[in-house]
Amino acid sequence: MSNQMDLTERTLSREDIFHGRVITVHVDTVELPNGAASTREVADHPGGVAVLPLDGENNVLAVTQYRYVFQRPMLEIPAGKLEYGEDPYQAGLRELKEETGAVPGRYESLGKLIPSPGCYGETLYLYLARDLQMSEQHLDPDEFLNVERIPFAEMVRRCLSGEIEDAKTLVAVLKAKALLGL
Amino acid sequence: MSNQMDLTERTLSREDIFHGRVITVHVDTVELPNGAASTREVADHPGGVAVLPLDGENNVLAVTQYRYVFQRPMLEIPAGKLEYGEDPYQAGLRELKEETGAVPGRYESLGKLIPSPGCYGETLYLYLARDLQMSEQHLDPDEFLNVERIPFAEMVRRCLSGEIEDAKTLVAVLKAKALLGL
Repeated sequence: MSNQMDLTERTLSREDIFHGRVITVHVDTVELPNGAASTREVADHPGGVAVLPLDGENNVLAVTQYRYVFQRPMLEIPAGKLEYGEDPYQAGLRELKEETGAVPGRYESLGKLIPSPGCYGETLYLYLARDLQMSEQHLDPDEFLNVERIPFAEMVRRCLSGEIEDAKTLVAVLKAKALLGL
Repeated sequence: MSNQMDLTERTLSREDIFHGRVITVHVDTVELPNGAASTREVADHPGGVAVLPLDGENNVLAVTQYRYVFQRPMLEIPAGKLEYGEDPYQAGLRELKEETGAVPGRYESLGKLIPSPGCYGETLYLYLARDLQMSEQHLDPDEFLNVERIPFAEMVRRCLSGEIEDAKTLVAVLKAKALLGL
């Protein structure tokens, strides 16, 4: 085991690489704890929200959308990007209504999620939504997804079997299972 | 609820942006299911492995390292990048030994994890390591981390309380809790 040490890395310089619609990329030169220099590649992201919607029969409202990066559709809980400066709590309500039409009577935090702390600057805020009132879906013009109701126990089974691989869906379902005893 | 539809997005063209030591960035123009064009920003990553090491007293060997992107140390399970073409099973054993010195007698898959499917191409392979034999840590020259033993029940508590935010650590701990009944 190593001794406890100061692990801080200090920024020496920054090279801006890319400013996109979603991600921003820069490469920083840093000073390591031993005084040596190294580089850190960073893909920054505005952050996002994800909501686990549970109806009165303990079904999850899950969405399937095409994930271009992985060239296949994936089953996930409703989620979306934060607008810069947007309150995550309100953003979760907005994304839930847009993607599924659901408006919750009970809505609470399931904590934060850092998907990949090495190079990716995204933080996701997770929420649990219950007592759902259903109204109309309002998708963005470039958003295409299918919604289905899946029993919570079946979602847990798919998380544990490996069928579900999406981090936010795994964390929200497994946290809800442990916290609510579902 | 929407009708089930074909959600496939087809690549029309690609602009290469950046080839780094770790991530590769490109922006693709795609055809959406309704025939309209849009762009998809992709930060690709070689993938990684993460290992939940449990000793004979059900302590987790956890590592704390400075996460430059978030400008703070984070407590996580041992993990590392895949070399291109490397077998994840072997890579997990290598990273576990390098970071903690542990060599497991029992070693099994905890499934795959896609940290952020929207823009980030990383897939993580998760493993559970038990019956640990301890030898020497062998860190890379630019790797600095502290190792500590934390009771599994305390790791679960920190996952559920929100103190642990790292996706791979949350998923591995909560999966192990559900699968092993710990």
